[in-house]
Amino acid sequence: MIAVGTELLLGQIVNSNAAEIGSRLALAGLDHYHQSVVGDNLERVAVAIRRAVERSDAVIITGGIGPTQDDITRESICAAAGIEMDFSEAYAVHLGDWWAGRGREMPTTNLRQAEYPAGAEFIDNPKGTAPGLRLQIDDTWVFAVPGVPQEMLPMVEKSIIPFLLAESEGAGAAIESTVLRTYGESESRIAEMLGDLFELSENPTMAFLASAAEIKVRLTARAATAEAARDLIAPMESEVRARLGGLVFASGSEPVESMVLGMASERGWTLGTAESATGGLVAARLTGVPGASATFRGSIVAYATDLKSELLGVSESIAEGSGVVSEEMAIAMAQAGASKLGVDVCLAVTGSAGPDPQERDVGTMIIAVRTPESVRARTLRLPGDRERVRTYATTAALHLLRLALMGEWWR
Amino acid sequence: MIAVGTELLLGQIVNSNAAEIGSRLALAGLDHYHQSVVGDNLERVAVAIRRAVERSDAVIITGGIGPTQDDITRESICAAAGIEMDFSEAYAVHLGDWWAGRGREMPTTNLRQAEYPAGAEFIDNPKGTAPGLRLQIDDTWVFAVPGVPQEMLPMVEKSIIPFLLAESEGAGAAIESTVLRTYGESESRIAEMLGDLFELSENPTMAFLASAAEIKVRLTARAATAEAARDLIAPMESEVRARLGGLVFASGSEPVESMVLGMASERGWTLGTAESATGGLVAARLTGVPGASATFRGSIVAYATDLKSELLGVSESIAEGSGVVSEEMAIAMAQAGASKLGVDVCLAVTGSAGPDPQERDVGTMIIAVRTPESVRARTLRLPGDRERVRTYATTAALHLLRLALMGEWWR
Repeated sequence: MIAVGTELLLGQIVNSNAAEIGSRLALAGLDHYHQSVVGDNLERVAVAIRRAVERSDAVIITGGIGPTQDDITRESICAAAGIEMDFSEAYAVHLGDWWAGRGREMPTTNLRQAEYPAGAEFIDNPKGTAPGLRLQIDDTWVFAVPGVPQEMLPMVEKSIIPFLLAESEGAGAAIESTVLRTYGESESRIAEMLGDLFELSENPTMAFLASAAEIKVRLTARAATAEAARDLIAPMESEVRARLGGLVFASGSEPVESMVLGMASERGWTLGTAESATGGLVAARLTGVPGASATFRGSIVAYATDLKSELLGVSESIAEGSGVVSEEMAIAMAQAGASKLGVDVCLAVTGSAGPDPQERDVGTMIIAVRTPESVRARTLRLPGDRERVRTYATTAALHLLRLALMGEWWR
Repeated sequence: MIAVGTELLLGQIVNSNAAEIGSRLALAGLDHYHQSVVGDNLERVAVAIRRAVERSDAVIITGGIGPTQDDITRESICAAAGIEMDFSEAYAVHLGDWWAGRGREMPTTNLRQAEYPAGAEFIDNPKGTAPGLRLQIDDTWVFAVPGVPQEMLPMVEKSIIPFLLAESEGAGAAIESTVLRTYGESESRIAEMLGDLFELSENPTMAFLASAAEIKVRLTARAATAEAARDLIAPMESEVRARLGGLVFASGSEPVESMVLGMASERGWTLGTAESATGGLVAARLTGVPGASATFRGSIVAYATDLKSELLGVSESIAEGSGVVSEEMAIAMAQAGASKLGVDVCLAVTGSAGPDPQERDVGTMIIAVRTPESVRARTLRLPGDRERVRTYATTAALHLLRLALMGEWWR
């Protein structure tokens, strides 16, 4: 896959097209080994096309086929293939009709879209005026589609993937993938628990992905049909689940903040937070979920020590006795928060996020959860700087809330 | 730039790293021509590195340097460069200390992170245990950093870009760059105001970068010396500043949340927030600044309507009369928040973030600021989905607070 566009290199937009096409190729069972991005430069695009043609059976190019002078994908294909540019009178008429049908005069620069590398077929673009292109260079199929996702995706789904599947018939294979999301152990510990399975795994393959405090284990299998691929995954998935036990908390993509809102709602409980060191991050994550207001009522960020008593209502003796960064304080914050916010479940976080230590070492974060059934606290020691400590603590707090809502806090 | 990871090819995650690094290279004035993505396959990664080395002065590899068996970037570098793997006893000790400092035993698989291609230097990773790598293959500098954005970005910003700038200066050309950060107009309006300067600009060059509600204008000049490059920038910068006037709020990289904390502190004022639609995001941004506790006291997130009166203390008649999403409500929240939190300055946000409209159209966000001198509100209409609306509103709120602290609210 080649994406053409200087705005991608400058980081002004993210190459989400690559992920969109990639996931559809995987679903179709088509192997996909390389992605490239190049700017709007004829020579570099032509070289990228040559390289891709040399190593691939098929190449999809996105972007650079619009009407303006910096759209140079058509010219680059001609240069890479050593062919001339042709002009489609029929498509020129079609373009004129398209604009006339909208009661507007066509800018002459748009006639560029009737140009095409000699021998290429047009791919119909149901959502715009830039047609796609399909041609063979050496033994490789080359496709060019617009960079605008709304135009590109239907062309990939309805024209290119069916064409490739028909071409590769017999070689046909489906790829299926399952992701198990875990919380509670490090990536390296998870890898160790599954080490021999990883070494053995060829089909399905196993991979690990870390994101904040969550570690994902991905199993991917390939077979003649999607069902056969799923059958290959099933025994490996069972074995992984057996070894990791309660560390696995989900196989879908629903974020943990959405899961806890759903779990609280199922029990008819409302939710709030009382935060110190995370400064509102937990509340911000929870209110990021559409419809959070049905369950989440609010938060008190008592950052200054005196607000913990004056606003939140924690007894002053706790700060003076146990200290601000203590399990006693976290529990008192959760209890006082539940009362002030009028909620059934209150999550509280206090700690020392750095850069300067507050009472305890930097990275000491204390999380408490109050439910109508219990109130408990846990002390975590987290690595990294202020931003990372706060982000990890937020995710960890949401997971401890999840465990508390499942009644599994002390597991 | 090469991103390593099968999850990218499968479209399970988007390659946002490429955009993050790309924008920073652009800001630094470093030319960046090619991006590639390859899966976790030793041979294909090695070939990608060879190709990149052949055409580039420097290559940044992201991903594949974690502790697990599918992290094969180190091995691929060895294969591409034809060198052996070495082992750092010193780093192994450092890793052991890191885990011991957290009271945990190091999984043995983590020792992989002490392996390195012979001759490579380690790049410090302040946010994790996987060190980065820097080595020369032929005449090309090759860098390898983790794929986790929170670890990768600081390494690119603090180690790799300064190194590349120093290296390219030695090549005889100094690159200097000035970034003017603006708030208050769209990217296209800024581009229009500077259009003729943009067309004329060759040295210095001009570029625009949008990030949330801020638009950056970057001027980059090349000359024999840094001083000569700065001399080239100076007249263009004066002209840009003259045209944009008060839209330019900074030329450094200090985030706006840090600026407002400093401005409030200078006047001896304490700060708090009363949030509804942003749900704690503004407080989270402010408390992300090290040392925020000297000025920021806390926040009340009154997400449920009844908490706006019961907890925050806003008269019930306002919700019943003007509504929850109204300037009257925002002003009342700012006033009540100042009183409850015991602060001099209180920022309040209410609005309709979506996906379902609340009283007003989705994207209607209302911001009020109460200072000891005045209280004012402003209504914004923001495009995009829930996440984008909340993020924009947070940045906009911090900027309106900045203007209020400067006494320029109504400018």
